[in-house]
Amino acid sequence: MTNEADRKFIELAFAEAKKSADAGGLPIGAVLARGETVLACGHNQRVQQSDPIAHGEMDCLRKAGRQTTYRDTTLYTTLSPCMMCSGTIVQFKIPRLVINDTQNFGGNEDFLREHGVEVIDAAHDASIQMMRAFIANNADLWNEDIME
Amino acid sequence: MTNEADRKFIELAFAEAKKSADAGGLPIGAVLARGETVLACGHNQRVQQSDPIAHGEMDCLRKAGRQTTYRDTTLYTTLSPCMMCSGTIVQFKIPRLVINDTQNFGGNEDFLREHGVEVIDAAHDASIQMMRAFIANNADLWNEDIME
Repeated sequence: MTNEADRKFIELAFAEAKKSADAGGLPIGAVLARGETVLACGHNQRVQQSDPIAHGEMDCLRKAGRQTTYRDTTLYTTLSPCMMCSGTIVQFKIPRLVINDTQNFGGNEDFLREHGVEVIDAAHDASIQMMRAFIANNADLWNEDIME
Repeated sequence: MTNEADRKFIELAFAEAKKSADAGGLPIGAVLARGETVLACGHNQRVQQSDPIAHGEMDCLRKAGRQTTYRDTTLYTTLSPCMMCSGTIVQFKIPRLVINDTQNFGGNEDFLREHGVEVIDAAHDASIQMMRAFIANNADLWNEDIME
């Protein structure tokens, strides 16, 4: 279940995704929070920085800098995490993940749950619609981002 | 089995690890190569750039920029990859991984092999000795890097 802080950060992750779209990038955003406190926001930087590892989740974790622990944090992402980002969530021991969109990409939710991560599908309609339109209009860039 | 190019890049990854050590960072380096051509070298940047996602492998992949495909590449790393880096290798569809040191860290080799990655343990003695000494002398930094 999502709480009030979750609902705020789901919208903040979506705003990050829109920011990336406005800059010509992939519209995928993320937020790392400790309770009601935002530690960092980030978004996909493949186009903007020619950086293939800067998925939304990774850019967000980079911007959060060196944290002593992630065990009291929640990661919010507009799109279900790929295997890179899922491996990172497990390695960083992030216990809770809120996903806006599991329709346009997914498949690693079971891997995450098997490693003890609480995975919440927020089914955020605006995120789902934006990603669906992006993929339809930018198939090459989308396939590059997921290395297909 | 390793070939002549492998043996060159095993040493190059070790040189990257030493470069990081000389800069006060974690002594872990990586090389991405396409056959006999180096695409990028990298090393851990946690200390140097306060970047928790910049493990050696990740820094190397970042520096290689946007590649059309990784299916004809080999990744060399001085230390067996953590779950973040292992997930990345799988997501990027890197088919071949050469590891200098599986003694001081490991455990994800089976995950990689299950996902079709050829994993070669080069058992590079100088890498093993350097990492062993680093962990003994820098337990806090090492534990931070693997989020323990």
